[in-house]
Amino acid sequence: MSTIRKKCATLAEHPAFMNTIIVLIVLNAILVGFETYSFVAEKYAGWIYLADRILLWIFTLEIVIRLIGSRSLKAFFKDPWSVFDFVIVLSGHVLVGSYYVTVLRIMRVLRVLRAISIIPSLRKMVNALLLTIPSMGTILLLLGIFFYVYGVIGTMMFQLIAPEYFGTLHQSLLTLFQVITLESWASGVMRPILAEDPSSWWYFITFILIGAFVIVNLFVGVVVNNVEEASREDSPSPTDMKLAEVQKELKEIKKLLEKNKG
Amino acid sequence: MSTIRKKCATLAEHPAFMNTIIVLIVLNAILVGFETYSFVAEKYAGWIYLADRILLWIFTLEIVIRLIGSRSLKAFFKDPWSVFDFVIVLSGHVLVGSYYVTVLRIMRVLRVLRAISIIPSLRKMVNALLLTIPSMGTILLLLGIFFYVYGVIGTMMFQLIAPEYFGTLHQSLLTLFQVITLESWASGVMRPILAEDPSSWWYFITFILIGAFVIVNLFVGVVVNNVEEASREDSPSPTDMKLAEVQKELKEIKKLLEKNKG
Amino acid sequence: MSTIRKKCATLAEHPAFMNTIIVLIVLNAILVGFETYSFVAEKYAGWIYLADRILLWIFTLEIVIRLIGSRSLKAFFKDPWSVFDFVIVLSGHVLVGSYYVTVLRIMRVLRVLRAISIIPSLRKMVNALLLTIPSMGTILLLLGIFFYVYGVIGTMMFQLIAPEYFGTLHQSLLTLFQVITLESWASGVMRPILAEDPSSWWYFITFILIGAFVIVNLFVGVVVNNVEEASREDSPSPTDMKLAEVQKELKEIKKLLEKNKG
Amino acid sequence: MSTIRKKCATLAEHPAFMNTIIVLIVLNAILVGFETYSFVAEKYAGWIYLADRILLWIFTLEIVIRLIGSRSLKAFFKDPWSVFDFVIVLSGHVLVGSYYVTVLRIMRVLRVLRAISIIPSLRKMVNALLLTIPSMGTILLLLGIFFYVYGVIGTMMFQLIAPEYFGTLHQSLLTLFQVITLESWASGVMRPILAEDPSSWWYFITFILIGAFVIVNLFVGVVVNNVEEASREDSPSPTDMKLAEVQKELKEIKKLLEKNKG
Repeated sequence: MSTIRKKCATLAEHPAFMNTIIVLIVLNAILVGFETYSFVAEKYAGWIYLADRILLWIFTLEIVIRLIGSRSLKAFFKDPWSVFDFVIVLSGHVLVGSYYVTVLRIMRVLRVLRAISIIPSLRKMVNALLLTIPSMGTILLLLGIFFYVYGVIGTMMFQLIAPEYFGTLHQSLLTLFQVITLESWASGVMRPILAEDPSSWWYFITFILIGAFVIVNLFVGVVVNNVEEASREDSPSPTDMKLAEVQKELKEIKKLLEKNKG
Repeated sequence: MSTIRKKCATLAEHPAFMNTIIVLIVLNAILVGFETYSFVAEKYAGWIYLADRILLWIFTLEIVIRLIGSRSLKAFFKDPWSVFDFVIVLSGHVLVGSYYVTVLRIMRVLRVLRAISIIPSLRKMVNALLLTIPSMGTILLLLGIFFYVYGVIGTMMFQLIAPEYFGTLHQSLLTLFQVITLESWASGVMRPILAEDPSSWWYFITFILIGAFVIVNLFVGVVVNNVEEASREDSPSPTDMKLAEVQKELKEIKKLLEKNKG
Repeated sequence: MSTIRKKCATLAEHPAFMNTIIVLIVLNAILVGFETYSFVAEKYAGWIYLADRILLWIFTLEIVIRLIGSRSLKAFFKDPWSVFDFVIVLSGHVLVGSYYVTVLRIMRVLRVLRAISIIPSLRKMVNALLLTIPSMGTILLLLGIFFYVYGVIGTMMFQLIAPEYFGTLHQSLLTLFQVITLESWASGVMRPILAEDPSSWWYFITFILIGAFVIVNLFVGVVVNNVEEASREDSPSPTDMKLAEVQKELKEIKKLLEKNKG
Repeated sequence: MSTIRKKCATLAEHPAFMNTIIVLIVLNAILVGFETYSFVAEKYAGWIYLADRILLWIFTLEIVIRLIGSRSLKAFFKDPWSVFDFVIVLSGHVLVGSYYVTVLRIMRVLRVLRAISIIPSLRKMVNALLLTIPSMGTILLLLGIFFYVYGVIGTMMFQLIAPEYFGTLHQSLLTLFQVITLESWASGVMRPILAEDPSSWWYFITFILIGAFVIVNLFVGVVVNNVEEASREDSPSPTDMKLAEVQKELKEIKKLLEKNKG
């Protein structure tokens, strides 16, 4: 059994194996792309179904090989990217007879995301991006409270004036997201409300000013953090290396002095 | 009396006390959220009123405990966050019989902001954000003058052409704020005016260019300031620590030399 | 004569003198603000005219005092802020009988800008902002060429399809400025053109991508420049100060050694 | 033959030669600018054609001189800017009798871009800008996958609801580009779709949040990279120069000590 495990591990780490999978993911991407053109989807429905089945089984085989090749089940499922691959491929089998064709098709599209888990540079970059999220925790909580308070106040004040924007709390939160992206905040949202309630400008102006201020600071924090981290990694700088030499020489001088003494 | 003060101080600083208040603030947030759905608000009006009363009295009790627990009234009111808590809770009592139901309800929503004064990491972050405002003083004054001058000129020039945008000085200032956020500045504001007064493009182009230039510089200043500050805090860098060692060793060598001399 | 000059110089540099002028500029600002409300302007036309005359003559007196107080005419006109003050005030006299009432009123508004030349911190900040312009020279030239080429191509291609946006070269340049600010670039400008000429999307996509890329780099350049400059000014850092001490001690050690030798 | 080569090389590097070409490029720019005004283009069609022919032949002469003046054909065509100049000028001759007047006219406009290849500071800046592209490779690939997946899902979900935005895959990609620039993403694209499919908000919110997050990180990466590079170039800092002096002195002390020993 162990030799099979070893062979699978060797195979799973072979560059040609990875490249084949990348090619198949690209094929999968082209397939789901073509499928969106309804005249293609109708004409070649059978072929597309067949190609999709074949791709799914190859991907399943790939996962099985990698599963066998891994040291243990635990080791395999500890890597979130392996879990991601596993879920994506498994869902293709589970949902195959499903009536929810759209869900099935979306799962098929998400297989394209496996390019990220396969290509090391992409995986590394996404890992790095995900790592910056925890450091944003507090400021995101602050933004959340800020949105919630403005959302409730907005619903209370403009529920009857602008039901399409502030009719319910979740509509208000969506509208506030639109306002913070500055999209039609004045022409679409504020000015019609202002015509009914001329004093409501403070609501939008303070929301934008505070929101922009907090987001800019969030952004500045990320920049500063990254600059600092980058400079810390640089730490064995030419300056420090020279200093180390100075320290070495000082020790030699001390030894010489102590000998002279003797 | 002093034992009561001590007990209150111990209680106010107990983590369980803080966590209870956080839970109650979340409950308060859910309550004001539900209240925005008019069918809920009407059906459960009595229950909501009751829950609100209970919450308010618990918050009052909390403030009283913290007030007694503090070293002195002066010490309590010196902390702006305590004042904030005090005002928010007090206003709930003062406005209770008020006809201005909207104001009362907004005060109830603002209680959610107490999460900031209770959770230390949020309070620290907001303090840090507020600290960056004074350093923006001069540039905000500059922006103010810039807005005022363009506001007066805009009112003078476009008062009759576009009364909905530049009818009065305060409408102009609001429009200029919309223009600086780049929202519909051309399609909504400039192009209709341009149809009447073809030479007015310089007004908008210069406003956007100068405004963007000043704001970008404001932003750059904040970034630079933060990067610098961060690097200054880092000051006891590995380089400096090594240098300190070098200085120590030099002193020892000097001592040795002076002994040799002797 | 020299005593008059000295007295004027002393007066011009007195804080009370400066504060008086600031108060008068604020009064002037309030005046031009009120004037925009047509019912005020009509009712108090006489009073506004009188107040304006008085303010203008006081400002004239101020300039004369500062002119006499300066070492020489040349010294006075060498400072661009003095020239700015001089021109603003002079234009008030020159244009007084003018038929171009709007121009006269705009000059009156521009007097508010004198706050910048009077308040030292504002003057310093504006000087600093203006100093960053030359370093942008090359990239602004590049942006200019980029706009011109796209402007000419756009006029050639869309002149007949969208005359309101690309009718003439200057209209095209204005539209491109709108597009680079991302305002209604798709909904307002591109989509109607796309309906006529389905292949024109490349024009807008490349323009936005290249434009955003160049502008972001312009911005990055400014940030980097400022960070660097700030860190250079910090130069006598704690590290360097410690190093200077190390060098001093080394010299002493050398002296000791040379004495020992002797 | 070699003397002709030398003369050409000297001529091609002469500042007056370069300035002449810049003047001619400016003339060319003015010419294509005037040509966009149809009444000018019709009235002076003959003169414009003549001027264009003359300019083209002068530019051809310039390229020939630079070609002869270069060490070898290979050396000339190794510099991408020379190739750019060559192609731009050659296309003017190749397309001259063409029926595709628009293509010919666009080539004529692109000659203005030769200003970049001629003016050294512009060429240097564009080279620097192009150099930053490879470092963006991975993140652009990530953005590409991200756009493709959302494009396919969007087409599948909204093909029938909003055919003008999500009718085909390429329309969807164009719409997503519009959404990521935040232009009318809510008022124009999302809200009409939301009216049909109330649960579709997650598609737009997640797209904008993830997209903005990735792009901001792309931007932060570029800033950090540039700051770091700039500080690395500064490397022979005052600190390092002082350290070098310290090292020199230590060596002298060591020599002294060794002599003393002797």
